[in-house]
Amino acid sequence: MEEPYKPEPGKLLKDIYVPSDLKKLKPEQLQQVCDELREFIIDMVSVHGGHFGASLGVIELTVALHYTYNTPDDKIIWDVGHQAYGHKILTGRREEFHTNRKYQGLSGFPKRSESEYDTFGVGHSSTSISAGLGMAIARDLDKSDKKVVSVIGDGAMTGGMAFEALNNAGALESDMLVVLNDNNMSIDPNVGALKEYLAEITTSKTFNKMRDEIYDLLGHFKSAGDKMRKVASKLERAMTAAITPGALFQALGFKYYGPVDGHNVDALRRHLEDLRTVSGPKLLHIVTVKGKGFAPAEREQTKWHAQSSPFDKITGQPLSASQRSTSQPPKYQDVFGDALVELAEENEDIVAITPAMPSGSSLWPMMNRFPNRAFDVGIAEQHAVTFAAGLATQGKKAFAALYSTFLQRGYDQVIHDVAVQNLPVVFCIDRAGLVGADGPTHHGLYDISYLRALPNMVVSSPMNEQELRDMLYAASKYNNAAWAVRYPRGRSTGMDVRKEFRDVELGKGRIIADGEKVAILSFGPIGNYVLDARTELQKEGITPGHFDMRFAKPLDTELIDHVLSNYDKIITIEDGTKLGGFGSAVAEYVAEQGVAVPVKIMGVPDRIVEHGTQRQLHDEVGIGPDGIIDEVKKAMGVLVE
Amino acid sequence: MEEPYKPEPGKLLKDIYVPSDLKKLKPEQLQQVCDELREFIIDMVSVHGGHFGASLGVIELTVALHYTYNTPDDKIIWDVGHQAYGHKILTGRREEFHTNRKYQGLSGFPKRSESEYDTFGVGHSSTSISAGLGMAIARDLDKSDKKVVSVIGDGAMTGGMAFEALNNAGALESDMLVVLNDNNMSIDPNVGALKEYLAEITTSKTFNKMRDEIYDLLGHFKSAGDKMRKVASKLERAMTAAITPGALFQALGFKYYGPVDGHNVDALRRHLEDLRTVSGPKLLHIVTVKGKGFAPAEREQTKWHAQSSPFDKITGQPLSASQRSTSQPPKYQDVFGDALVELAEENEDIVAITPAMPSGSSLWPMMNRFPNRAFDVGIAEQHAVTFAAGLATQGKKAFAALYSTFLQRGYDQVIHDVAVQNLPVVFCIDRAGLVGADGPTHHGLYDISYLRALPNMVVSSPMNEQELRDMLYAASKYNNAAWAVRYPRGRSTGMDVRKEFRDVELGKGRIIADGEKVAILSFGPIGNYVLDARTELQKEGITPGHFDMRFAKPLDTELIDHVLSNYDKIITIEDGTKLGGFGSAVAEYVAEQGVAVPVKIMGVPDRIVEHGTQRQLHDEVGIGPDGIIDEVKKAMGVLVE
Repeated sequence: MEEPYKPEPGKLLKDIYVPSDLKKLKPEQLQQVCDELREFIIDMVSVHGGHFGASLGVIELTVALHYTYNTPDDKIIWDVGHQAYGHKILTGRREEFHTNRKYQGLSGFPKRSESEYDTFGVGHSSTSISAGLGMAIARDLDKSDKKVVSVIGDGAMTGGMAFEALNNAGALESDMLVVLNDNNMSIDPNVGALKEYLAEITTSKTFNKMRDEIYDLLGHFKSAGDKMRKVASKLERAMTAAITPGALFQALGFKYYGPVDGHNVDALRRHLEDLRTVSGPKLLHIVTVKGKGFAPAEREQTKWHAQSSPFDKITGQPLSASQRSTSQPPKYQDVFGDALVELAEENEDIVAITPAMPSGSSLWPMMNRFPNRAFDVGIAEQHAVTFAAGLATQGKKAFAALYSTFLQRGYDQVIHDVAVQNLPVVFCIDRAGLVGADGPTHHGLYDISYLRALPNMVVSSPMNEQELRDMLYAASKYNNAAWAVRYPRGRSTGMDVRKEFRDVELGKGRIIADGEKVAILSFGPIGNYVLDARTELQKEGITPGHFDMRFAKPLDTELIDHVLSNYDKIITIEDGTKLGGFGSAVAEYVAEQGVAVPVKIMGVPDRIVEHGTQRQLHDEVGIGPDGIIDEVKKAMGVLVE
Repeated sequence: MEEPYKPEPGKLLKDIYVPSDLKKLKPEQLQQVCDELREFIIDMVSVHGGHFGASLGVIELTVALHYTYNTPDDKIIWDVGHQAYGHKILTGRREEFHTNRKYQGLSGFPKRSESEYDTFGVGHSSTSISAGLGMAIARDLDKSDKKVVSVIGDGAMTGGMAFEALNNAGALESDMLVVLNDNNMSIDPNVGALKEYLAEITTSKTFNKMRDEIYDLLGHFKSAGDKMRKVASKLERAMTAAITPGALFQALGFKYYGPVDGHNVDALRRHLEDLRTVSGPKLLHIVTVKGKGFAPAEREQTKWHAQSSPFDKITGQPLSASQRSTSQPPKYQDVFGDALVELAEENEDIVAITPAMPSGSSLWPMMNRFPNRAFDVGIAEQHAVTFAAGLATQGKKAFAALYSTFLQRGYDQVIHDVAVQNLPVVFCIDRAGLVGADGPTHHGLYDISYLRALPNMVVSSPMNEQELRDMLYAASKYNNAAWAVRYPRGRSTGMDVRKEFRDVELGKGRIIADGEKVAILSFGPIGNYVLDARTELQKEGITPGHFDMRFAKPLDTELIDHVLSNYDKIITIEDGTKLGGFGSAVAEYVAEQGVAVPVKIMGVPDRIVEHGTQRQLHDEVGIGPDGIIDEVKKAMGVLVE
């Protein structure tokens, strides 16, 4: 068991359990709370891991918000919830914070079922303004006076739905505050015109100086006392709007305030206090530093976005020696990233697209090698997909790299712009399956189902890194349809990998081992658990067949015919929902044949699966090696259900 | 057979087959081309039906674009393609335009496979800037000098992906032109803050006057010759940016030009000519009138967005008397719209949301009766879903009305904000199944598959209008999960409908008729074809069983057990893809039982289905009554495959 946090005497944070405790303090004590909160988070994450930079950047904002507003009656919505550690610690969860992101522990994101202070589950970006507007309108209908505050980063602001929400909120004129937390970072450095626009506002000293000069000028005119005075008055009104920064937000119906130093807790508190009395939609633009207060994180913000292993809380060096020296198998994402560069060397039509995930998707090698052929388009999955389609219309071979969970946001574009037009875009779907500590908002469970339903779409998954490379190669040469390759978060198998690429035949699976009675049809790296299970079963004289199907679509019906002829029972296994996916494709085919061979579909059950390590979750839902062994034994009649 | 268009002598349009013919004319002849083109479209649509207002509004733009640019080498992308009639007529399709939107005729939208002038298939909104940027970047990589022009309406501009694309394009600085066609309408009047912003630009006379006055003022200062001169110079630079309209677009890195009268073809031509020489991302803001040149359409823009029946081309009156008098069964959308108001009368927590489709989704009755509880959020499906989720967190019963094809665009929000948090939002999914003349971009074929895969989601479809009312009632009282009710485009059955609501038991189907040997399990109104088929089959002594399953999820496994015990073969039928949907759910269950009862899944095959009437398409893909009769006979061994 982990030891819970033990407060030191003489400190403030130890007595803050809920925001009402915070409110008992004097404003001048808040900076101390911030300092302690920052130290607490660094202590915790240095030992237990977790997201990091985002929460350190909003310490002062978090304290000021909970000091000013009456949570949980007033509603705070944290966009992309990994900035909410401070919020969690101040709202009843300090003593269990050491369980953050651990199996059966606290969620790394705000979560409605965890606390009444968590008003909305947030993991994907750009949702907070829409959700906040919903709460504001409900408040209006209920004639209540609750306040609503959505806190959104500048990266999340590039997501289209944030713009949709601003446009709607600006017109509905309901009372709400949007705090724009501008640190010029999402996970990777933020990109796009909006970033430059915000930088112009925040860095331009001349801007504020000029504003003063202009007002001086107008003063002169007014005192001049001729017909110029009327013009000057008109001018002043226009100028007030025009020379205030934030014209973009004003154009969308929001009153703009800022920019404000987001690390001055007293200034924040005063601004928030003032804004409580301003009605209608309004935006407060604060400027913060991601990782504020932890020098290594301030220096290398991308690296310190999240940490999974213990580190020295001063230097940032990893704590265990083994961590630095052990050579582990490469991550699947890196196998992809390296293979892509190799393919791009040979084929100059290859281009790559990522929506704000060059690190997470390992697109940096491509971006470094071919900067003109690799595009980080910002947090903008919809645009990413259609942009790829546009490139494909001109003969470019577009590799769109997205996490499974984020591709959900480009689903209409996959259908409307890629599948309907049959453009041969390659979708490189990372984080497919249960992802681990990030939990339900980030699991990639639905892609097999939602892609398999579409015409002109190949759905494949490699069992190991060799297969991944070969599949990418095959996809790069295939121009008859779009092709999705899904692979999981984490490390590959560590096998020896052949350097040259070999083709993978479309729609053809592999016989891993023929066997007796029960055939296991696996899709993707989950097949490696089947290898483990089979080794165990063989010790008991049970020898199921094992088939690595490679493709959920097109399905290798020839191989299934072989199975139907030679086995009594089929078990399918995939790291994705049991409904409508790979197993369902097999069931559709078998049911149509009308043979009495039962198909047991193993996969993620039809419920929300929480966070934990990938292995813990696979075991929990029964698709780990033990679960496979049990299912085979049940199918053999050895184990009674 | 329809008669093809016969040109009158002395006219210009008759000699224009492709844009190079247009280019032979003198600039002063273009207005005549516009007039003829407008007349041609009114003639055609008054006889054959079709979309209307949007194309009439961009006649001058269409002519100016094809006159200025070298299509098809230069790329024009028409956002929400129903504005592209003029484009189609000028690009080789004048003589077959009478087949527009008819079975096996021209598509009502630009379509890559139809013409090299159709650069991108567009049916859903807000895709044109992303696609255009992809083409522009491909052009840059190929070191070509093709021009790229995306034409987007102000309604489509509220879609988040347009904003994502602007943000990306503004940063990439690739050469492209966005033409913002501002008519303050999408299908229904446009809503949102952006609309007001554009209106301010275009209507403010004082704005332009003030601009002049300010420059006068600055002139005075400069001549004053003291230290004010330096300030004035600085001021001038700032003002030039600040007092130009379009600050919003400039903030996103676009040079802004406009507003320009979009019905002055010569002005448009000159502006486009000038802009050819301006490099980088730029936006031309033109102001047009939807339905321009056809008085009834200018007066009632929503009504005249599209017309399906012949009308008098002067008065707009419908041509056939029967059309005015025949009382037809109500449309499903109206059954929904009326039922919603009845439910909302009884339950004050009920609120309704539509993304820019109050007419198409029949939300007007609710908006008129309860204006504070019904929200048109603009073309913003992502926001619509999360806004509904936000309302649900506060105890509101949110009915989100979306077309099946447009809900695709809110898919991530359905997963992340509704399903993961288990918020009991009701999704009223209109236009589910094959939709008819709008074709592949608008068919609603995937919703059963993509929703069934999600936890905390009920997926239901009523067989008729009575069932629809009762299902909406049941959904309004259900708070344990989200509930999707899908229903098709078009008329209901015309049955007598009971006034009071009755509950539909969750996950329970209905036995329409027990029978022998073959059981047909239907999902939704497609079950009415089964009634027809069964009537025919009975004449031949064939009596299959028929079960209206009502729910694809949760599945009525008890009823399926009854079927498995009493029938030899199962046929499932749905108006949706065969992959992963209702039939697949049945196949999963049957395959797991390991009984030798074959399941034949009838549905829309795994290919793109083009346009036509709904009945033509149902028959084409084999899910009309004849197709059902054939399948039953095959299952009985009466008809050999």
